[in-house]
Amino acid sequence: AFARLDHARTRRTGLPEVVWGPGKTAEQIALILERLQPHNPVSVATRVEAPLFDQVAARLPGIRYYPQARLCALFNPALGERHLPGCVGVVSAGTADGPVAEEAALIVELLGSARVVRLWDVGVAGIHRLLDNLELLGQADVLIVVAGMEGALASVVGGLVEVPVIAVPTSVGYGAHFGGLAPLLAMLNSCAAGIGVVNIDNGFGAAMLAIQILRS
Amino acid sequence: AFARLDHARTRRTGLPEVVWGPGKTAEQIALILERLQPHNPVSVATRVEAPLFDQVAARLPGIRYYPQARLCALFNPALGERHLPGCVGVVSAGTADGPVAEEAALIVELLGSARVVRLWDVGVAGIHRLLDNLELLGQADVLIVVAGMEGALASVVGGLVEVPVIAVPTSVGYGAHFGGLAPLLAMLNSCAAGIGVVNIDNGFGAAMLAIQILRS
Amino acid sequence: AFARLDHARTRRTGLPEVVWGPGKTAEQIALILERLQPHNPVSVATRVEAPLFDQVAARLPGIRYYPQARLCALFNPALGERHLPGCVGVVSAGTADGPVAEEAALIVELLGSARVVRLWDVGVAGIHRLLDNLELLGQADVLIVVAGMEGALASVVGGLVEVPVIAVPTSVGYGAHFGGLAPLLAMLNSCAAGIGVVNIDNGFGAAMLAIQILRS
Amino acid sequence: AFARLDHARTRRTGLPEVVWGPGKTAEQIALILERLQPHNPVSVATRVEAPLFDQVAARLPGIRYYPQARLCALFNPALGERHLPGCVGVVSAGTADGPVAEEAALIVELLGSARVVRLWDVGVAGIHRLLDNLELLGQADVLIVVAGMEGALASVVGGLVEVPVIAVPTSVGYGAHFGGLAPLLAMLNSCAAGIGVVNIDNGFGAAMLAIQILRS
Amino acid sequence: AFARLDHARTRRTGLPEVVWGPGKTAEQIALILERLQPHNPVSVATRVEAPLFDQVAARLPGIRYYPQARLCALFNPALGERHLPGCVGVVSAGTADGPVAEEAALIVELLGSARVVRLWDVGVAGIHRLLDNLELLGQADVLIVVAGMEGALASVVGGLVEVPVIAVPTSVGYGAHFGGLAPLLAMLNSCAAGIGVVNIDNGFGAAMLAIQILRS
Amino acid sequence: AFARLDHARTRRTGLPEVVWGPGKTAEQIALILERLQPHNPVSVATRVEAPLFDQVAARLPGIRYYPQARLCALFNPALGERHLPGCVGVVSAGTADGPVAEEAALIVELLGSARVVRLWDVGVAGIHRLLDNLELLGQADVLIVVAGMEGALASVVGGLVEVPVIAVPTSVGYGAHFGGLAPLLAMLNSCAAGIGVVNIDNGFGAAMLAIQILRS
Amino acid sequence: AFARLDHARTRRTGLPEVVWGPGKTAEQIALILERLQPHNPVSVATRVEAPLFDQVAARLPGIRYYPQARLCALFNPALGERHLPGCVGVVSAGTADGPVAEEAALIVELLGSARVVRLWDVGVAGIHRLLDNLELLGQADVLIVVAGMEGALASVVGGLVEVPVIAVPTSVGYGAHFGGLAPLLAMLNSCAAGIGVVNIDNGFGAAMLAIQILRS
Amino acid sequence: AFARLDHARTRRTGLPEVVWGPGKTAEQIALILERLQPHNPVSVATRVEAPLFDQVAARLPGIRYYPQARLCALFNPALGERHLPGCVGVVSAGTADGPVAEEAALIVELLGSARVVRLWDVGVAGIHRLLDNLELLGQADVLIVVAGMEGALASVVGGLVEVPVIAVPTSVGYGAHFGGLAPLLAMLNSCAAGIGVVNIDNGFGAAMLAIQILRS
Ligand SMILES: Nc1ncnc2c1ncn2[C@@H]1O[C@H](COP(=O)(O)O)[C@@H](O)[C@H]1O
Ligand SMILES: Nc1ncnc2c1ncn2[C@@H]1O[C@H](COP(=O)(O)O)[C@@H](O)[C@H]1O
Ligand SMILES: Nc1ncnc2c1ncn2[C@@H]1O[C@H](COP(=O)(O)O)[C@@H](O)[C@H]1O
Ligand SMILES: Nc1ncnc2c1ncn2[C@@H]1O[C@H](COP(=O)(O)O)[C@@H](O)[C@H]1O
Ligand SMILES: [Mg+2]
Ligand SMILES: [Mg+2]
Ligand SMILES: [Mg+2]
Ligand SMILES: [Mg+2]
Ligand SMILES: [Mg+2]
Ligand SMILES: [Mg+2]
Ligand SMILES: [Mg+2]
Ligand SMILES: [Mg+2]
Repeated sequence: AFARLDHARTRRTGLPEVVWGPGKTAEQIALILERLQPHNPVSVATRVEAPLFDQVAARLPGIRYYPQARLCALFNPALGERHLPGCVGVVSAGTADGPVAEEAALIVELLGSARVVRLWDVGVAGIHRLLDNLELLGQADVLIVVAGMEGALASVVGGLVEVPVIAVPTSVGYGAHFGGLAPLLAMLNSCAAGIGVVNIDNGFGAAMLAIQILRS
Repeated sequence: AFARLDHARTRRTGLPEVVWGPGKTAEQIALILERLQPHNPVSVATRVEAPLFDQVAARLPGIRYYPQARLCALFNPALGERHLPGCVGVVSAGTADGPVAEEAALIVELLGSARVVRLWDVGVAGIHRLLDNLELLGQADVLIVVAGMEGALASVVGGLVEVPVIAVPTSVGYGAHFGGLAPLLAMLNSCAAGIGVVNIDNGFGAAMLAIQILRS
Repeated sequence: AFARLDHARTRRTGLPEVVWGPGKTAEQIALILERLQPHNPVSVATRVEAPLFDQVAARLPGIRYYPQARLCALFNPALGERHLPGCVGVVSAGTADGPVAEEAALIVELLGSARVVRLWDVGVAGIHRLLDNLELLGQADVLIVVAGMEGALASVVGGLVEVPVIAVPTSVGYGAHFGGLAPLLAMLNSCAAGIGVVNIDNGFGAAMLAIQILRS
Repeated sequence: AFARLDHARTRRTGLPEVVWGPGKTAEQIALILERLQPHNPVSVATRVEAPLFDQVAARLPGIRYYPQARLCALFNPALGERHLPGCVGVVSAGTADGPVAEEAALIVELLGSARVVRLWDVGVAGIHRLLDNLELLGQADVLIVVAGMEGALASVVGGLVEVPVIAVPTSVGYGAHFGGLAPLLAMLNSCAAGIGVVNIDNGFGAAMLAIQILRS
Repeated sequence: AFARLDHARTRRTGLPEVVWGPGKTAEQIALILERLQPHNPVSVATRVEAPLFDQVAARLPGIRYYPQARLCALFNPALGERHLPGCVGVVSAGTADGPVAEEAALIVELLGSARVVRLWDVGVAGIHRLLDNLELLGQADVLIVVAGMEGALASVVGGLVEVPVIAVPTSVGYGAHFGGLAPLLAMLNSCAAGIGVVNIDNGFGAAMLAIQILRS
Repeated sequence: AFARLDHARTRRTGLPEVVWGPGKTAEQIALILERLQPHNPVSVATRVEAPLFDQVAARLPGIRYYPQARLCALFNPALGERHLPGCVGVVSAGTADGPVAEEAALIVELLGSARVVRLWDVGVAGIHRLLDNLELLGQADVLIVVAGMEGALASVVGGLVEVPVIAVPTSVGYGAHFGGLAPLLAMLNSCAAGIGVVNIDNGFGAAMLAIQILRS
Repeated sequence: AFARLDHARTRRTGLPEVVWGPGKTAEQIALILERLQPHNPVSVATRVEAPLFDQVAARLPGIRYYPQARLCALFNPALGERHLPGCVGVVSAGTADGPVAEEAALIVELLGSARVVRLWDVGVAGIHRLLDNLELLGQADVLIVVAGMEGALASVVGGLVEVPVIAVPTSVGYGAHFGGLAPLLAMLNSCAAGIGVVNIDNGFGAAMLAIQILRS
Repeated sequence: AFARLDHARTRRTGLPEVVWGPGKTAEQIALILERLQPHNPVSVATRVEAPLFDQVAARLPGIRYYPQARLCALFNPALGERHLPGCVGVVSAGTADGPVAEEAALIVELLGSARVVRLWDVGVAGIHRLLDNLELLGQADVLIVVAGMEGALASVVGGLVEVPVIAVPTSVGYGAHFGGLAPLLAMLNSCAAGIGVVNIDNGFGAAMLAIQILRS
């Protein structure tokens, strides 16, 4: 058996196992999702490119795809969904950060069944775009800030709100960006205290932490 | 004026400004704390070494020092403390991680007025030390995991609990540790989904995020 | 002559020369294997992708391919195999670490003619998967631990067993993984003393060391 | 002769040679400044620590010291000063960035004889501190932004003003700050277009560029 | 809406918003340029490869392409151009630095409507090529120096002229060049004081800063 | 309790817990060693500088110090020593690698009670020094190779012997040595297959692995 | 004119300008070579892949290609060749280092018209292969050592010969090789004193230095 | 015996073993030099700080010290010196590079007994200082170029001369200099072909290579 499923994960950590797509064949992904389905209202695989998804879908007709976020989800209608109270805000700096931000937003909606407020393209080069939307931010119980380039958005948001902030650096940039190192370091060194950082492009992980916070 | 205090920070972010000690003279630290005191039940400066503290204390007799955590705190008894419900667990991997772990625990107690459960020296080289204390961990609403060396403790804890986990890499190590880079990268790449990471040795920041989570 | 074979290597180091595939043409690989065949019960080339193998096989009909491990092997039935006593355990953290883990396992079987116990997909995010299999681990005289992401599995295994542990970081991960740097540093800084580390994705090297240990 | 002075530099580049203190003895610094004095209204040495300055001053009684900026200056009253029209704004993020910011401000005043507007401690964690001072910024023809930690201040300022912005990352920070690497990368990747970056802690170089811009 | 345009940017910073091509579809680029057109004499998208441009042009027939610089520009003849007085010199070290140098030159011409002097292929390995053209350099009010390899050209130019110098490291090189890190570090550490550095391959940013300097 | 001793470690891993000196007070070290003494024939603390040892010895009169290796050891004569059959060779490249090599040799002798063959100062710049001692090397069942500078010794030894090789890079070097990174990378990339690498300057870890191999 | 040829280079440095292929079109390469031809007995372009060469050859029928080294050369029979006395030895560690080693050897032969001794595939994992060929090495007046992996060959050769050694690290390797960083650092830190190092994969540069040494 | 002297080195490589001071006691240095003295006209130890030298001199009265270069030398007048024909030029960029440049110059004089031409403080920020001294450079048969900051001097010199150039990056700089990494990378990527680079601050190694070139 190439995969040893962790069915007890939901019981232990409150969150189901999620399939990491890269390096798996369509057959493997389909098989694992099928084995997860009976135990979870929704089973998800991340980082699945469109052509790979098509092969997965050939094996699992009921499966759904979210192209921008590169997620695929297999539902089990028999299992009642658990709706989390509270709201997660997802804020992104630029248009190119969209896929990561959308991955975060969808994971919150799919696995957390919680409400999401999206605020796209409010990078600090035009800070009024953020300041004009403070009310929207005010609705969130947790904020996920997604930014590439220099990642300054996380610090500015962190200094404005009184809820936990999760920062996601993205690989959007070039040159001395070094594949996301620049915003990663910026977010870890933020002068706005108390920001939790996840891996570069890890919208998935940010969402998992946000759900844990909503549940706590 | 060398410092522009941010008195509105508590109103805006729910948490007071905290003085960062390095690069400041005893005089500057004393002055800033004095100016913060009327507005906050407790005003704190971080990373203040003992000899510097002695100079600060000469100017501010009422001030208190926590030597292991290198914190100093100035209280304002006139302002009623706000007690946060909930409990923060602080877990450390080795004896040498103590100062960072204690900084985190004390900041939660001082600024969050929340209950703290401490679990020291439970590194994964002897994993039974952690497994024997799962009940203790179970009391926490948020967990702060402090670890140097390879930082594996964060992943193991993250796979065992259903509350948000904040990971603090420390600079405890040598050689290819590169001042904390090793556990920092490990924590960012954790296979246990949903861990928020703060800067190397940043017990302070982890505590601030934990308080925000308790308040959310 | 583009290649200067080291036929004396088996006599000197106990292990035969093995062909490193990258940067070689099918013709070169076939030629070298043919020249090695008379001297060794089995001659191996590593990191040979499937299309390249097909070209090699066109020249060397008797050759065998192991697709997951990207190995090809040319046997010499005339030479009696030397069976090593002892058993090597190969443990992997995630499904995507499979190719590297399988390369290690196969090299032990092919070049060491030793027994291999495989334990796949027991990453620390669900530590019970490892703890449930301690007996299996107990059969091994040497353990090879293969892990990407944060590589924490090596430390946890190292703290549980009383045999030598060889750790193989893999390039499975993204972002601040930096192509395997994260688990490499983690393994070098392991708090479980006495783990020997090999290069990123170097299942081959781990197996060679394991065979040397069995022989010693 | 250990030093080959570049007296023609003022004629060639419009700016005099300035002595870099580190690695020089007090005797060498005094000698070079004395040889520069006849040719320049003011001759400056940078990065001279107080004890070294005392030794320099023993040899050059007329010399002046600026302790926070670690500059020493030798004036030549016989040479009329050339006053540059225009104004340079120097903005800093935190109290600890003071020495670098003050070095920049003083070099503009000493070598450029231009007006300087200082705005200290307006880091983005409390962005209103910056927004409340936009009028002050509006007086400047060039802006120098000095910031450690994550260096986000440069991007925010760059998005608000219509004059050239020079960004100076500082080494103020710890852990994943890597001695100023974090704000350096942030400033190079700023989403606010058209920011010129100088070396970490290089207040001097920022001032030289600002003077060139005023003169152009 | 995937994009939140910053129409006020020209009023605020004197320079219009420019579209960053990477990660956007042809449709998105066309849409944004169309929305920018009414507000700006020329609207520009950078880093648009030829095949992508063809798709954009299918939607926006009037658009123009500059293949070497990978820029596309949409003009609005109704809006009178604002001509900047002054001249920008763009100097490049080698033939392969052409695309970045040309991007810088074109952005100055398109967005700044200023005169540009180009000096190509004058790398320091044959320094007479630069020294023979000092008069040409003398016409510029600002200089942009574009260089890959070791980036030494910036220092040599900086020591020869009395105008502001903006240095652009390029990714032209191999091996220990590390994608432009070598010239980036060289330019940040230039012994010629007062050089402002932009990101690797960022001809666009250098031009934006040059325009700001001309306007100041 | 600042330290949670892992008395079961010997039973579990075959090797006792060893105290890591850095970051601990003399009092802490003495206390821990005292608590380990009843359970182990010898209890060891590593990386204890001479002045700190003097303070430890003031509390624990019976303790012994090995100055070059910076080890201190507390014996328990009541517990019979377990003598391991076999022999470990420790080979070092230069005189300055002595402390790390001696740490490895002593740990094998103290904790493994095994025979050690020492071969000092046989760096590859004079390769005959190594070739003249092949017989000595031939006595060893495991080899530990300690080298700073470029660490080439590990590859040369690895190509000559038929026993397991453990490589220890040291921080002996300067400039582009980056504190041991140069020999660390060299050893990980060795063209001699099957070398296990430990952390920079980690003579202790190499010895622990050697003991495990002898025991296996 | 995209290229400013440096015809005086031969007079100034004794060596002609050589065309760097990457980033140039076939048309540009052909044009530059044609312009160089009248001034040099042989004009060379480096790093030209086979398909690009075919396009160049379509324009320049007389041109010759060396596929392994990826060089193309245009001869001018009218100019008498200058034969350098002396001999350059080129030594390589593994088969995969062939292209770089051959580039070095051919540049010495083409531009230096000097005798070359080639010694291929003598990596230190089987050191007898080198020791068996010391006589061959003894013929050389300068040695070029080409090695990937850990690059140890340069140190071993450097300790055996009494002629200048030029070391060329190659990008042959994987994982913690980081594209040639491992052997580059090894060669810079060689314990064999007096080795000159060139860039990763820079066989060309090594040959140019060797020619200069022969001429000196 | 802590040191295994390589007395045959002169016969094998033409150059004697030289003692590397760091990490050795005064007693060790004195002992090794005494053992080298009978075999060499001059025996040298490098990187010996003044206080350590005083202790060495107490044991070896005849020894001589060169404070700027931190060298000590023990002569053996009985052995006739071998004078090398030819001349080495040593060129340095700034005053602070003096110690490294002087180490190079003295090693050439002491071990090579060759003539040295020194040219100090001719950094490229004032390039006329170099151009005014081309005749002096013209006397050299080999050039050693020593430069910190951005290291551009090596490229400029390399483009002007027809003798072999050895480049020595120094650690003189700060911030993004990263201890000499900036000029090291610059020199390795020089657009002037055929420069041999040695380790950061390695004046010793550059001199050894220069001597080998003179002898070849
Ligand atoms: N995009 C993602 N980033 C990081 N971790 C992920 C991602 N998607 C899934 N995972 C985690 O990867 C693990 C599954 O790995 P595997 O066994 O290889 O499928 C689970 O623990 C998931 O929580
Ligand atoms: N130990 C710490 N680590 C990170 N940030 C801190 C620390 N202590 C205080 N701060 C933050 O640093 C800022 C104060 O900086 P300063 O104005 O220099 O005193 C505040 O925003 C604090 O939230
Ligand atoms: N393979 C190579 N590696 C490094 N430099 C080279 C190489 N080939 C040519 N060059 C140098 O690159 C320069 C030519 O660059 P370009 O003007 O872009 O053709 C000349 O100074 C050559 O000496
Ligand atoms: N400053 C230096 N930099 C690099 N290598 C050196 C230096 N001084 C001496 N060496 C070399 O270091 C070796 C001596 O090392 P050791 O045996 O530790 O004294 C000899 O091979 C010398 O050639
Ligand atoms: Mg936008
Ligand atoms: Mg412990
Ligand atoms: Mg799994
Ligand atoms: Mg402040
Ligand atoms: Mg050119
Ligand atoms: Mg030695
Ligand atoms: Mg080979
Ligand atoms: Mg100077």
